[in-house]
Amino acid sequence: MNYYLGIDLGGTDIKIGITDNKGNIHIKQSFPTFAHLDAGTLIKHFGKCVEQVIHNSGFKKKSIKGAGIGSAGLVNPETGQVKYVVNIQTLNDCYLAPAMEKKIGIPVFIDNDANAMTLGEFHFGAARGYNNVIALTLGTGVGGGLIFNGEMYRGSTYSAGELGHITIETNGILCNCGNHGCIEQYVGREGIVKRFKKYQKQKKMKSTINKFLDNDGITPKAISKAAKAGDKLSRLVMEETGTYLGVALASYVNILDPEIIVIGGGIANAGDLLLKPAREEMMKRAYPLPAQNVKIVRAKLRNDAGIIGSASIAVNSLK
Amino acid sequence: MNYYLGIDLGGTDIKIGITDNKGNIHIKQSFPTFAHLDAGTLIKHFGKCVEQVIHNSGFKKKSIKGAGIGSAGLVNPETGQVKYVVNIQTLNDCYLAPAMEKKIGIPVFIDNDANAMTLGEFHFGAARGYNNVIALTLGTGVGGGLIFNGEMYRGSTYSAGELGHITIETNGILCNCGNHGCIEQYVGREGIVKRFKKYQKQKKMKSTINKFLDNDGITPKAISKAAKAGDKLSRLVMEETGTYLGVALASYVNILDPEIIVIGGGIANAGDLLLKPAREEMMKRAYPLPAQNVKIVRAKLRNDAGIIGSASIAVNSLK
Repeated sequence: MNYYLGIDLGGTDIKIGITDNKGNIHIKQSFPTFAHLDAGTLIKHFGKCVEQVIHNSGFKKKSIKGAGIGSAGLVNPETGQVKYVVNIQTLNDCYLAPAMEKKIGIPVFIDNDANAMTLGEFHFGAARGYNNVIALTLGTGVGGGLIFNGEMYRGSTYSAGELGHITIETNGILCNCGNHGCIEQYVGREGIVKRFKKYQKQKKMKSTINKFLDNDGITPKAISKAAKAGDKLSRLVMEETGTYLGVALASYVNILDPEIIVIGGGIANAGDLLLKPAREEMMKRAYPLPAQNVKIVRAKLRNDAGIIGSASIAVNSLK
Repeated sequence: MNYYLGIDLGGTDIKIGITDNKGNIHIKQSFPTFAHLDAGTLIKHFGKCVEQVIHNSGFKKKSIKGAGIGSAGLVNPETGQVKYVVNIQTLNDCYLAPAMEKKIGIPVFIDNDANAMTLGEFHFGAARGYNNVIALTLGTGVGGGLIFNGEMYRGSTYSAGELGHITIETNGILCNCGNHGCIEQYVGREGIVKRFKKYQKQKKMKSTINKFLDNDGITPKAISKAAKAGDKLSRLVMEETGTYLGVALASYVNILDPEIIVIGGGIANAGDLLLKPAREEMMKRAYPLPAQNVKIVRAKLRNDAGIIGSASIAVNSLK
């Protein structure tokens, strides 16, 4: 059996796990990132974390064929360089993959977190066996990755897959990216919550949302829970979100004619509350042949998507 | 020198030419399609047309390495089957490429006309030397083709590249495809003319358009000519068209991060009147890195784009 290291690198935590070549996780551990440290010290720290996980796993190092780092921000998977990560700025311009490879003595590959998630679903999740794949993550931001003819497509500046930033309303809501009317503003966390609060204020209908709130106040998670329990306003908001999502899906389908669109991220936990109206709207809007052909499904990798996705970067690079 | 046959198959005319491997046309002829004939008779007819062009060219048949058919509608380039062509319905489901190959004794390949145009620009036009290409045609319809990592991308049902049918206004103008707010309705022929007439009626500003009209009345061609001669209303309409185009370009850039977007079709004859505002709007809306990287240029192949594009199908298949 071959094993792969998955390193899910975030600004607060670095999550490290070891998967086998079927995508099963055998061990996982989380460490603080210490994002304030300089690049050299960080790499030493990451190296120690990796060695500790390998030690704790009991696996021999030579059975671990490769390691994948899934990083936020802009990275160059060919040179292994981090170009820009907002949460760990000391790593900007650092050749992280080759430096880590030297440190741990295992081939190391890097890609951004959206591509990692895409490769995770492609190798071990809902998109297994498909050649033309769109993976979409719905969270605070809306992002994604593209697989065409069985290969990851990264674009000319490694910037492809910004699926959350297509315009569905030319003069629509101002997006954090500077554009107006990006789909992210309609199906991302902020858009959903704003719409819920607006309707609540307008007294559109009564809501039992208060029963579902935790310390974070009104969130897509709470709205989704309330909707599943039958709350009408929450259902309306999730259905609307699905309908907006369907507008974007139709555009992806008409341009890219994928076999499957895999939808992950926290907001996808709403499941068919979101995906049913999304599919229906997509079917209304897209060309019949590609619309009938494409499958729109929920991502299969959930809590461990970051680690399995990161390991998949190595699996994909070594295939 | 190797030669290639380009067969540009339309509902009214079939245009046949011979190009060399640099994309130069050595001979071209046009014949009526006789779209009412049954498939068998049509294939005999097309075969005779091809033989006549070869005869007239003086080239030896064996110097012609392949023939490409660029067809409207839906075709399967792998099997050579025409799935559906609205203007030549007797060809529906016909295995046209293998039938023609048997008839003329030269390898025959087929693709749709948008992909043919894309391959023409890729092999012999503005996109030569680029690996990630979007080609867009602006005419009565708005269509296009996609090249990723140096390969034509056709999608899962050979339907990819419907670039005119992404939604830029969720509740926008009803499109012929059934969707609302497709970019085609804002930058295609009908949309441009409708907007011009609306502004004329609203007496938005005076126009000298009447000096530029031919028998077809108000057309994008006339508006473009008038705009170039300084007509203010025409300029406004073309600039608006460019701005709308830029909205869609930004979405293509954010999703696909291409190196170059090549814009052809009759409406692209407006040149920088259209492309300047389109580039500016794209730059405002798209992510800075891919936006600064992408070139947005006019197609290089003009009048003979159909023949050279069709020949390029063969060039590409035999490469």
